[in-house]
Amino acid sequence: MPRSGADARRRLQQAALDLYRERGFDQTTAADIAQRAGVNARTFFRHFPDKREVLFDGEADLRAALAQYVREAPDGSTPAEVLLHAFRKAAHILEDNRAFAEPRLALIAETPTLRERDLAKGAAMAASVAEGLRGRGVDDRLADLAAHTGWAAFHHAAQNWIDDPAPGLQAHLVRAFAEVNALFGAVTPPS
Amino acid sequence: MPRSGADARRRLQQAALDLYRERGFDQTTAADIAQRAGVNARTFFRHFPDKREVLFDGEADLRAALAQYVREAPDGSTPAEVLLHAFRKAAHILEDNRAFAEPRLALIAETPTLRERDLAKGAAMAASVAEGLRGRGVDDRLADLAAHTGWAAFHHAAQNWIDDPAPGLQAHLVRAFAEVNALFGAVTPPS
Repeated sequence: MPRSGADARRRLQQAALDLYRERGFDQTTAADIAQRAGVNARTFFRHFPDKREVLFDGEADLRAALAQYVREAPDGSTPAEVLLHAFRKAAHILEDNRAFAEPRLALIAETPTLRERDLAKGAAMAASVAEGLRGRGVDDRLADLAAHTGWAAFHHAAQNWIDDPAPGLQAHLVRAFAEVNALFGAVTPPS
Repeated sequence: MPRSGADARRRLQQAALDLYRERGFDQTTAADIAQRAGVNARTFFRHFPDKREVLFDGEADLRAALAQYVREAPDGSTPAEVLLHAFRKAAHILEDNRAFAEPRLALIAETPTLRERDLAKGAAMAASVAEGLRGRGVDDRLADLAAHTGWAAFHHAAQNWIDDPAPGLQAHLVRAFAEVNALFGAVTPPS
């Protein structure tokens, strides 16, 4: 029975997630994952450079999508409006992968080596979004500030959506942006 | 001439910074740094676990100081007010190390392995600040959101202070918080 590359890739991801949860990330090898997925180790490395990357497969798609949606946001949008527009348009990417999203976040939270990779991916995501804002004429430093605070809001929304999927990720994003507004709107200037 | 441990430590830091700038981080060994500082390699490793940590020496002090200032912020402060209070109180830690701050930030920006460590330190800092907010009764998730957005504002202020030290870091912090407020206050709820 021939298997498409996309099918093997998906099965490798599922096998990795299952094994990481059963044995722990550090106790699982790429060969174990390949075996569980019914492919050989060479196939594993044709799809992924290492066993961490299996869990970050959607990041490149998400980054590319966000870059596009930042470019396409309506003229005259403020930087935060651009971000909220882009994040909401990209919400389906997470929603389409909901089955992976929850165990993935839990694994990352409890595995230091995955936390490191996740931080690096998050920083790359924020840098890419900031670049997109600069491309729309937003000031250099302000673009970084908007991207990093916006990314924190995105992360917050995604976690709330894991806990409570019913309203949808888009609603959680709108709420997260409102929460940042409420947090910082209330600051009394120091005397 | 006897040298105190604190003196050796300071000289190791200066030697590391000088060598990283002259040769690049990857081309410098711990032994090179020790030699430049006039101590032996054993002394280097008594002070620092590796050559990355030399550049992150103040982080533990800053984290401890922030934890204390978060606890001591006036009753009735909002989470963002608590953070601004704590960051302003801690500003002198960066200002006292201004000579290191500028080349250090430039080095981190251009050296991937230092970027990684910096991200991990930043995440630990935000986690510690979030824990402090929870200790004040702030909701679990909201504490994380406030800490991460606040940390982005801190970072932004520190970079602006590097470029323009005259107003002082405290003034840059106040401005950074106002900028986050302006960014997120302007979001029009999507239809």
